[in-house]
Amino acid sequence: MSFHYKNGYLYCEDLRIKDIQQQVPSSPFYLYSLAQLEANYAAYSHALEGMDAFVGYAIKANNNLTLLKRLREMGSGAVLVSGNELQIALAAGFDARQTIFNGNGKTLDELRLAVEHNVLINVDSEFDLAHIQQAAAQLDKLADVLIRINPDVDAEVHPYVSTGIKNSKFGIRNERLDWFLAEIRNDARLNLVGVHCHLGSTIKKVRVFRDATERMVEFIRAIHAEGFRLRYLNLGGGLGIDYERTGEDIPTPRALVDSINDLLPEDITLIIEPGRSIIGDTAVFVNSVTGVKTNGSKHFIVTDGSMAELIRPSLYDAYQHIQFIEPVIGKVETYDIVGPVCESADFLGKARELPTPDEGVGLVVCDAGAYCHAMSSNYNLKMQPPEYLVDGDKLTCIRRAETLEDYLRVFDIP
Amino acid sequence: MSFHYKNGYLYCEDLRIKDIQQQVPSSPFYLYSLAQLEANYAAYSHALEGMDAFVGYAIKANNNLTLLKRLREMGSGAVLVSGNELQIALAAGFDARQTIFNGNGKTLDELRLAVEHNVLINVDSEFDLAHIQQAAAQLDKLADVLIRINPDVDAEVHPYVSTGIKNSKFGIRNERLDWFLAEIRNDARLNLVGVHCHLGSTIKKVRVFRDATERMVEFIRAIHAEGFRLRYLNLGGGLGIDYERTGEDIPTPRALVDSINDLLPEDITLIIEPGRSIIGDTAVFVNSVTGVKTNGSKHFIVTDGSMAELIRPSLYDAYQHIQFIEPVIGKVETYDIVGPVCESADFLGKARELPTPDEGVGLVVCDAGAYCHAMSSNYNLKMQPPEYLVDGDKLTCIRRAETLEDYLRVFDIP
Repeated sequence: MSFHYKNGYLYCEDLRIKDIQQQVPSSPFYLYSLAQLEANYAAYSHALEGMDAFVGYAIKANNNLTLLKRLREMGSGAVLVSGNELQIALAAGFDARQTIFNGNGKTLDELRLAVEHNVLINVDSEFDLAHIQQAAAQLDKLADVLIRINPDVDAEVHPYVSTGIKNSKFGIRNERLDWFLAEIRNDARLNLVGVHCHLGSTIKKVRVFRDATERMVEFIRAIHAEGFRLRYLNLGGGLGIDYERTGEDIPTPRALVDSINDLLPEDITLIIEPGRSIIGDTAVFVNSVTGVKTNGSKHFIVTDGSMAELIRPSLYDAYQHIQFIEPVIGKVETYDIVGPVCESADFLGKARELPTPDEGVGLVVCDAGAYCHAMSSNYNLKMQPPEYLVDGDKLTCIRRAETLEDYLRVFDIP
Repeated sequence: MSFHYKNGYLYCEDLRIKDIQQQVPSSPFYLYSLAQLEANYAAYSHALEGMDAFVGYAIKANNNLTLLKRLREMGSGAVLVSGNELQIALAAGFDARQTIFNGNGKTLDELRLAVEHNVLINVDSEFDLAHIQQAAAQLDKLADVLIRINPDVDAEVHPYVSTGIKNSKFGIRNERLDWFLAEIRNDARLNLVGVHCHLGSTIKKVRVFRDATERMVEFIRAIHAEGFRLRYLNLGGGLGIDYERTGEDIPTPRALVDSINDLLPEDITLIIEPGRSIIGDTAVFVNSVTGVKTNGSKHFIVTDGSMAELIRPSLYDAYQHIQFIEPVIGKVETYDIVGPVCESADFLGKARELPTPDEGVGLVVCDAGAYCHAMSSNYNLKMQPPEYLVDGDKLTCIRRAETLEDYLRVFDIP
């Protein structure tokens, strides 16, 4: 309940968002609740209590430096998908031994950086293994690796965020497992420490995690039978959140852990890699209504935020709940909520029953913590928006607004 | 033929792209041909020769400062969709009297800037008109406005880039034209100088422009009958380019102009607003192959470029031609060309018949001048890529690579 209504106004913890909107210099902006972040992380750490396990927060969901530092202080590890994400994880103070480098297209430069810092590295393919070997050889250093298995489990989500089926670009071809084991065995600089899988994102059924765990435990047994001693089972992330607000039963971290606990082998550290379920519902994207218009049968609320700052509705046809931050008493209509960007792809929500707002009214896109700011662009020369964090009754700017001056800097060519 | 093959290598004008790839410090990058840009602009200026007309280049397609300066030197005006685009147009030296400010969600701040600089302003809605009136009143200054008519012509393109149908978020409700005329007549600071429409983007049939022109001329007559004297007919942009390389007949600027020329009224300046057809085919997006993998039935070429630098395939399911910049003799397979970004939405092309490349081979996504760099993001902490311009045998960096240091600057909070 970090975001809640009181007397018709939406609050973030103890602060009225309307007051924040009037106080901060730019619109739109992202607004985070620290209490919600703490509660979400605690749900994982409590579910994993007493188990041999750690959480690797998926930085790709949201890379705000302050939020990363907070998560690190709570005890989180980190999952990285680029060399820059490793750099920012180091800047945020993460223990590199609790970081994992994922991805199907890591470059040699990135892998050298990962080996140098003792990051756990997931092997995605034959060429990826060869690059890890090159990096370890160039540094003459041991690399701890996990093999990314493709469990061929359908996560039952949008194809764009389904990553654990056979036709996915991710993971090794399982029939080639023996080849990978032989390669690793023959390279003294490679240390096989685990297996990894990742099913996708926005998953709402713990059964798919159980199915995957069963497959992964079979792989662990097969690999142990080849004389390896694995330390990690990395089940990836992917738990969904309640974007739709339908009261649908979204599994908790506890339900996820309970569903797989009896399957876990002895002496294996479980790694889970949540992103969305830790950061997704910690934020709203705060807009100001520029105006309302109609083209006869269709009605539009035009906001100052757009697909440039928040592309999920446009890219994935994703639903994010939209509500006003203050009392609005106008006539209820069916509205498309659209931004100022010059194309029809620019919408934040479609066909929402809402009262007609006056200009300047505050409107939020909910559950905007994950894959929102992280995917923002400068389309139409919109600048990346600022981010603010609420802690009780305290408001802190945790990312200033990008300025045109910042943007133009790349044109100063030496 | 600015991009052409010689002895199996792809050239940009006189330079072998492989040599450029080996010479520049980062990958991926965008590479532009100045000759192609000049040819594309000349196709418009020749088609409009002797006519009372000007070109407003749509900055949203590509806002590289050097390219903007070149277009301005060629005689182009500019179409703006944000205050920042107006700022960059001024920085590039455009004559503000040959600029037009479009959009359904202009803010009051942006409109003040436009009025201050004598930009032509398109009126999109009742609230937009009210904001223009406020801006003119606050500055006590005359504002030249055009009314954005919705011609209700189906551009027969992807719904995301169709903007001239009745259900679009753009333009006034035509039944309300009299109300708009009365409001403008009653405001001494507003000067109605024209009408505007915009049908969409990637249009391949000049017939739709003719249909729209017929409708617009009717509107001009109706407005003249009310005692106004219009100076501009702004037909928007939207001409497609031959992304598919099927040899399909894409209309030229000449064909577009010829199709409407007999309809144009006397004493009216024609404005057209091309973006894609001026800048789209001037560039390729140059990648290096990170590796090749298979998951049995599916084959992947993994590149260092991704949906972060070029999102059109993912967002619009857009086809952009993909080819190697050097001889490749491996086995021909059906490949998905995918980047390193950690989701299945990350692809540059699907199901392409290509020979199997070695690692490090150069691969280009063609026709990458429009809506490619302009929509790039920092997803997965990928930095916005650099841009290079070729002029004959001369290579110039026209946008340096964004660095992680640039990115982190927004976290230095005073």
